[in-house]
Amino acid sequence: MQRFNFDVDVIDCEWGAGADLELLKQKLQADRSHSVKAVCVVHNETSTGVTNDIGAVRRILDAAHHPALLLVDGVSSIGAIDFRMDDWKVDVALTGSQKALSLPTGLGIVCASPKALEAAKHSKSTRVFFDWGDYLKFYKAGSYWPYTPSSQMLYGLRASLDMILNEEGLDNVIARHCRLAEATRQAVRAWGLTLCTKKPEWKSDTVTAVVVPSWIDSNEIVKIAYKKYNLSLGVGLNKIAGKVFRIGHLGNVNELQLLGALAGVELALMEVGYPVTLGSGVAAAQAHLAKQTPLIKSRM
Amino acid sequence: MQRFNFDVDVIDCEWGAGADLELLKQKLQADRSHSVKAVCVVHNETSTGVTNDIGAVRRILDAAHHPALLLVDGVSSIGAIDFRMDDWKVDVALTGSQKALSLPTGLGIVCASPKALEAAKHSKSTRVFFDWGDYLKFYKAGSYWPYTPSSQMLYGLRASLDMILNEEGLDNVIARHCRLAEATRQAVRAWGLTLCTKKPEWKSDTVTAVVVPSWIDSNEIVKIAYKKYNLSLGVGLNKIAGKVFRIGHLGNVNELQLLGALAGVELALMEVGYPVTLGSGVAAAQAHLAKQTPLIKSRM
Amino acid sequence: MQRFNFDVDVIDCEWGAGADLELLKQKLQADRSHSVKAVCVVHNETSTGVTNDIGAVRRILDAAHHPALLLVDGVSSIGAIDFRMDDWKVDVALTGSQKALSLPTGLGIVCASPKALEAAKHSKSTRVFFDWGDYLKFYKAGSYWPYTPSSQMLYGLRASLDMILNEEGLDNVIARHCRLAEATRQAVRAWGLTLCTKKPEWKSDTVTAVVVPSWIDSNEIVKIAYKKYNLSLGVGLNKIAGKVFRIGHLGNVNELQLLGALAGVELALMEVGYPVTLGSGVAAAQAHLAKQTPLIKSRM
Amino acid sequence: MQRFNFDVDVIDCEWGAGADLELLKQKLQADRSHSVKAVCVVHNETSTGVTNDIGAVRRILDAAHHPALLLVDGVSSIGAIDFRMDDWKVDVALTGSQKALSLPTGLGIVCASPKALEAAKHSKSTRVFFDWGDYLKFYKAGSYWPYTPSSQMLYGLRASLDMILNEEGLDNVIARHCRLAEATRQAVRAWGLTLCTKKPEWKSDTVTAVVVPSWIDSNEIVKIAYKKYNLSLGVGLNKIAGKVFRIGHLGNVNELQLLGALAGVELALMEVGYPVTLGSGVAAAQAHLAKQTPLIKSRM
Repeated sequence: MQRFNFDVDVIDCEWGAGADLELLKQKLQADRSHSVKAVCVVHNETSTGVTNDIGAVRRILDAAHHPALLLVDGVSSIGAIDFRMDDWKVDVALTGSQKALSLPTGLGIVCASPKALEAAKHSKSTRVFFDWGDYLKFYKAGSYWPYTPSSQMLYGLRASLDMILNEEGLDNVIARHCRLAEATRQAVRAWGLTLCTKKPEWKSDTVTAVVVPSWIDSNEIVKIAYKKYNLSLGVGLNKIAGKVFRIGHLGNVNELQLLGALAGVELALMEVGYPVTLGSGVAAAQAHLAKQTPLIKSRM
Repeated sequence: MQRFNFDVDVIDCEWGAGADLELLKQKLQADRSHSVKAVCVVHNETSTGVTNDIGAVRRILDAAHHPALLLVDGVSSIGAIDFRMDDWKVDVALTGSQKALSLPTGLGIVCASPKALEAAKHSKSTRVFFDWGDYLKFYKAGSYWPYTPSSQMLYGLRASLDMILNEEGLDNVIARHCRLAEATRQAVRAWGLTLCTKKPEWKSDTVTAVVVPSWIDSNEIVKIAYKKYNLSLGVGLNKIAGKVFRIGHLGNVNELQLLGALAGVELALMEVGYPVTLGSGVAAAQAHLAKQTPLIKSRM
Repeated sequence: MQRFNFDVDVIDCEWGAGADLELLKQKLQADRSHSVKAVCVVHNETSTGVTNDIGAVRRILDAAHHPALLLVDGVSSIGAIDFRMDDWKVDVALTGSQKALSLPTGLGIVCASPKALEAAKHSKSTRVFFDWGDYLKFYKAGSYWPYTPSSQMLYGLRASLDMILNEEGLDNVIARHCRLAEATRQAVRAWGLTLCTKKPEWKSDTVTAVVVPSWIDSNEIVKIAYKKYNLSLGVGLNKIAGKVFRIGHLGNVNELQLLGALAGVELALMEVGYPVTLGSGVAAAQAHLAKQTPLIKSRM
Repeated sequence: MQRFNFDVDVIDCEWGAGADLELLKQKLQADRSHSVKAVCVVHNETSTGVTNDIGAVRRILDAAHHPALLLVDGVSSIGAIDFRMDDWKVDVALTGSQKALSLPTGLGIVCASPKALEAAKHSKSTRVFFDWGDYLKFYKAGSYWPYTPSSQMLYGLRASLDMILNEEGLDNVIARHCRLAEATRQAVRAWGLTLCTKKPEWKSDTVTAVVVPSWIDSNEIVKIAYKKYNLSLGVGLNKIAGKVFRIGHLGNVNELQLLGALAGVELALMEVGYPVTLGSGVAAAQAHLAKQTPLIKSRM
């Protein structure tokens, strides 16, 4: 079955590594005819806990004077990790309601640059429901949609954005994600485990993927955490199935919720036979949080 | 200002001690004329974390062949700690929606024995809104109330009781409170602190009151927990103000939520200068919970 | 059983009539010793659809130079009918969350003048839970309460007040209640029925009590409306039981909801055998509403 | 831009007419080579208020011994109008959460026959997110999804189905839609207006499309209803824009809500200058409802 009516040149990377920017650079510089129409990159790779440097991708495009569109999957980054649509000249950015926006699943959010809108007019790819043109036509007439929108989710989006932008402040939100993520990594280190993320420069502030020893099935950790402690960890997917479990720490989550979750991970690790010292990861995370956590503004 | 138009013989106890059952026994045995109309006792004393043995109170009444009514304040016990209206021949039991029932504040729930209903008919105390007679008259006619009821809270009560009685099961709910409370006490011990509760027999499974060293103001712990970690601890009240803080663990709360809260207490203790080892209380609580926590039935 | 430890001089009125202001005037003028401590009056009498002129009561007090407190039950008026605490020098005003504020039942709201607060200090009446002094003491320390408050209801109150004061505007809210009430009275007239309210000056803008012919039991109308059309009408209470039914039109209700309710009343009237012309009351109400209803501000 | 990689033979009909079953019959009988792979038909056409006889389509297919799949758009019918997946051997049926199920917009619900599942395996059409195969693979492993599901909507669906199937009962739900629709049509007749639906056999029990006189712009009716009475009518779409407005009456709607809406339509008609007698449509609808509405089961 044909899935796309265009060629896709996927640059395969090791799981846990970021996008291979050196190879991308070579390919773009070699593409004198500008046959590459778009560079697609994931900002934060949810399955491995890898954050790519989108600014660097933009610099490569610019250095190569390459006109390709820059399309970014920001599903698990936008609203949690610093993302700069304008500075990085991102052409299309995507996110969903159920991640950093802390809403129910249901909204896909797309942001497109004028350059992307122009390109879309000339594109020949198959489009029906997701055709931007239909939406733009209706937007012009007011608050209308070509298809029935989910009003509830739109009200929720308004509330979520108010919380992020006005109540807590985007900079504080990003700092909080950074703080909670580092606390999580400190816990992983204290447990004597390693990250799936291959290099520190790729560490993710929204999800931490943890590699387990080869004699442990990471699915068992996820299962016991869920069945005994009502804790939802992420399983390892695809190539890292059974080898990795994931701790999500994005959206409307705070210090003590994270510490409770880390305590739950410790219990699950112990129950699958991993020699963990109870409280060790929690203590490491606490030490980091004690230094970094500010007073809650509205309570000062 | 006159508050009650009847005599009240309050048996004062040390804060942190349970009801003085020996003295109660003497008083009841000495009351040959049965001038005592009712014995009022708190099942679980929220401000000190003390649980009284209501069954023992009943046995004292029975042994003295005393007809006094047994009135029990079960606000922070009923639905969390074993309470036996019938076995203990309790005449009036009270609770509120906002404790073990995990509902918003708003409903006061009263249960009365036939003996209490009979006594109420002959009582001369001032009653208006809370006059049972008005309610009973309307109940007879169907689902009616003498005053506008809060339908939302009544639907909530239905849902709460379904969760307690059908989904989790009352025995499991009581076992969970017992488990979380013991885990909390283990944490307190690990921190090198003591309970406000004077003897183990009075330990409470819904609230733990912790005594702090004399050079620490317990209000500061409560304040920092709230302002920095969004954790609501209880202050010490009245005679133990500044000397005690309280950790509530009743209602719809689970293992990891408790561990998160305990981690927050540790952080607050550290910040007020108490020499706590981070993770120590969490680890002690984890050790207890790992042994005691069953799998979640619906996920087995 | 003693209900109050003070004398109450109730001025009885015919059901459907307003407060007898002439008699009140005589009593106050005769009370040279100022033995009357407070004048209690209901702003809007829910069971008969009668609105009293509170400003006139104040003028009587002032003309008599009488220092009695003015206590007003504004349960079914405040937030719907013009009420002027300051202009009328009301000393205590009461309302509830479940009426004009459109919230669930649960909050009693009390507003007291400095004069009332001062009087409360010297009052000898029995008070426990509802002792203002306890509340005022805690308010001084910040957002605290002597007893556990219903946070949910307080957030709801904030939202309700925002809707009334900011979104729709209090003047518009009052005008809407006036418009819907007059439409309802036009419908009653079109049905050939009369109001329980004895004179036009007492007409209520929040509830309309309708007298049925003697050969009809008004409870039957209420019953069929509820059982067949899911419409909650009010029964006649006490002296007017069986003779009157009531249509409530206060709070967050709009034109078409009222017209739907009036259509339901017509159906219920028909089913109990009253010779009503279907659509007649609705048409009369529509004619009034068509003239009076403004465009919705946010949609203009 | 290519939208589908297969041929579509659209049988155009007059707006307001049902599917041309005679022409369908001819085409299917003529298609000896079975080049037609699927017959797509809308059960209830939302824009014109037309319901097609799906059973008749099935009989045509059977009579022609034609193996084409029967694909049915049941968006505004399933859960409100009698629909028989099994009896009519429908191969694919679609609906959405926001219509008869009375949920927020957000779920698309697809039901496929074994024959459709088999055909999907061999289909060459472009599929990504909506590929059934991915879903079926995950369903086999338990309650899993290939993509993040909207748990909230799934809980809502459970509640909605309980209301339809258990509380009210599907037969009663269908009867209620029938009753409300006929009441609406009676109102339209009383106003002297006509249906967009060309023949009675196509009348829809979920939406009524009303044709206005040529000198009236139906958009004005919709606008005034919304701006003055907070009533959402549907505009005429495409070929019937400005000529038709639509009254929706599906989902969790009852008699008095409908009568309120009809009263609003009358007011809007009057305001655009149409000579309507206020109350006339309401009265006609009431007359029908009085006869047809049963007592509410839970209140009997």
